[in-house]
Amino acid sequence: MAADAIKQPSRAQRGQEMAGGVNLREKLDSFSDHWSPRIVADMNGHDVMVVRVDGEFTWHSHAESDDFFLVLEGELDIDLRDRTITLGPGELYVVPKGVEHRPAARRGEVKMLLIEPTGMPNTGDEKTAATKVRI
Amino acid sequence: MAADAIKQPSRAQRGQEMAGGVNLREKLDSFSDHWSPRIVADMNGHDVMVVRVDGEFTWHSHAESDDFFLVLEGELDIDLRDRTITLGPGELYVVPKGVEHRPAARRGEVKMLLIEPTGMPNTGDEKTAATKVRI
Repeated sequence: MAADAIKQPSRAQRGQEMAGGVNLREKLDSFSDHWSPRIVADMNGHDVMVVRVDGEFTWHSHAESDDFFLVLEGELDIDLRDRTITLGPGELYVVPKGVEHRPAARRGEVKMLLIEPTGMPNTGDEKTAATKVRI
Repeated sequence: MAADAIKQPSRAQRGQEMAGGVNLREKLDSFSDHWSPRIVADMNGHDVMVVRVDGEFTWHSHAESDDFFLVLEGELDIDLRDRTITLGPGELYVVPKGVEHRPAARRGEVKMLLIEPTGMPNTGDEKTAATKVRI
């Protein structure tokens, strides 16, 4: 399942246009599990995803990619080894490649837009990564 | 000026982390001109930008890149040759590379998040492109 979802060619690779705009709130309302990103669009070899999160994720880094977070609802902490970045709605942060970080929703659920290279494991490790399903 | 702004190395290229999160509303409130994107972050060779727009842009396409639009305030039309995609706040669309499009704010000002490869002219043509300033 995971491999199928990740290896599925993107709309751009298939030469297809998106039928219409993507409403992020509607996409987020269509599922309820946490730390399980859904792909909503493709851009230049990247997955554009929405995710609902609660609690702490694992410490990880991505050797080959920056990691883009835009908070839509709630308040996210991004722990770095020397400090914590806190993001509210309409705030974004890009963790540079190679930098260890731990996303954490410690004050209720957080809804976010994420952008990562297609096929990149969200934990930095294929063995522990979540399946990214296209919705 | 334009060349300086575009050729400036990204934070990621300089190996620097962003000091903190980027508040998109604050960034948008810091300027008032239209169709003049400001770079607020870097991600994997892309500029993450905010822009305020009003009226119609020019028809154009980008041969080598998809074009990402996320509306934050207002209502944006993206004219394609066969239809128009309309986006409200919290809605996104990715125009595939090579596809002609004309963004248009026809019902008041629109504020957006844009993502494009670093150095890509926003009109698809260096001669007519806006300078992208980092803020």
